[in-house]
Amino acid sequence: MSRITIIGKGSMGDAIGGVFAAGGSDVAYVTHGQTEATISGDIVVLAVPHPEVDGILTAFGAQLEGKTVVDITNPLDFSTFDSLVVPADASAASHIQAELLESRVLKAFNTTFAATLVHRQLGGVPTTVLVAGDDADAKAALIEAITAGGVSALDAGALSRARELEAIGFLQLTLAVSEKIGWNGGFAVIR
Amino acid sequence: MSRITIIGKGSMGDAIGGVFAAGGSDVAYVTHGQTEATISGDIVVLAVPHPEVDGILTAFGAQLEGKTVVDITNPLDFSTFDSLVVPADASAASHIQAELLESRVLKAFNTTFAATLVHRQLGGVPTTVLVAGDDADAKAALIEAITAGGVSALDAGALSRARELEAIGFLQLTLAVSEKIGWNGGFAVIR
Repeated sequence: MSRITIIGKGSMGDAIGGVFAAGGSDVAYVTHGQTEATISGDIVVLAVPHPEVDGILTAFGAQLEGKTVVDITNPLDFSTFDSLVVPADASAASHIQAELLESRVLKAFNTTFAATLVHRQLGGVPTTVLVAGDDADAKAALIEAITAGGVSALDAGALSRARELEAIGFLQLTLAVSEKIGWNGGFAVIR
Repeated sequence: MSRITIIGKGSMGDAIGGVFAAGGSDVAYVTHGQTEATISGDIVVLAVPHPEVDGILTAFGAQLEGKTVVDITNPLDFSTFDSLVVPADASAASHIQAELLESRVLKAFNTTFAATLVHRQLGGVPTTVLVAGDDADAKAALIEAITAGGVSALDAGALSRARELEAIGFLQLTLAVSEKIGWNGGFAVIR
């Protein structure tokens, strides 16, 4: 059983927490906007829009030391939907890791729309969470907590692969916003 | 009916040509390594490994003027499998467009393994070819020729989205090479 804190209680935070709770993890929430709270989890999910991340790191950075921090963001320029706001050779996740040197940062959940986590499938195919990170133990623990909740998860490589995961999340969002795919669809992983 | 020339007759060239032929297109091949040939197609598919592209542009660039040129490459550094060889803010497709100013360059087929084109499905889900490009008519003609062959195709946006398509192709190749997915699997598009 993992102890997991989810910062943010929007549709993604709810869906992610539901998966973990179904798998027997102890799930606590910190509401988006709270600036004081005790972070009890060993795994902390930043389930907030990308522009909120820096404020959370300021408020809770010291408490995140020694913990696994999961970045789920898609750092789009939402005014244009035509680019990311992170440098082309970097990622939101690599930025967070640079800010949290004593944490083990993972990228996950940015390629799965909330509905596909709630329903555990998209188009009849089991939902797969892609997980990237440099710490093998942290990745294994997260993957175990996800799969215990009935959702497939796959090690997508080192944290440097967050760049590709963010590209997938970006394209998937542009396709959904332009109504070429549904919000209960997207990229499924066929093994 | 489209007239299509495929440069390269490896597994991808064969699979792509098979789809077009099944859809009633007139398909001709130029064998990889040929430096002299008449390009008869209105749509020309560069079905060669990325390092071969520049040589083909040198040999056939003048003949490609006025045509639709389809780039299917995944420009990986195959010595490390850890990065692309194109600049982080660009793509193989944008490089080709810069070299072929009088052609309409499209990115397509780089996110679909050959087997998923041959079988028209992966994991029971219809195969979808993602197509990016700036010329709407060229995209529509390519999508029509693909769908006529029994494979789904989706407009993924402007040629700038080739960067995201190449990220997907890159990640998919790393997952297949590390045996986390099969060569008859990969990313399926659920609408």
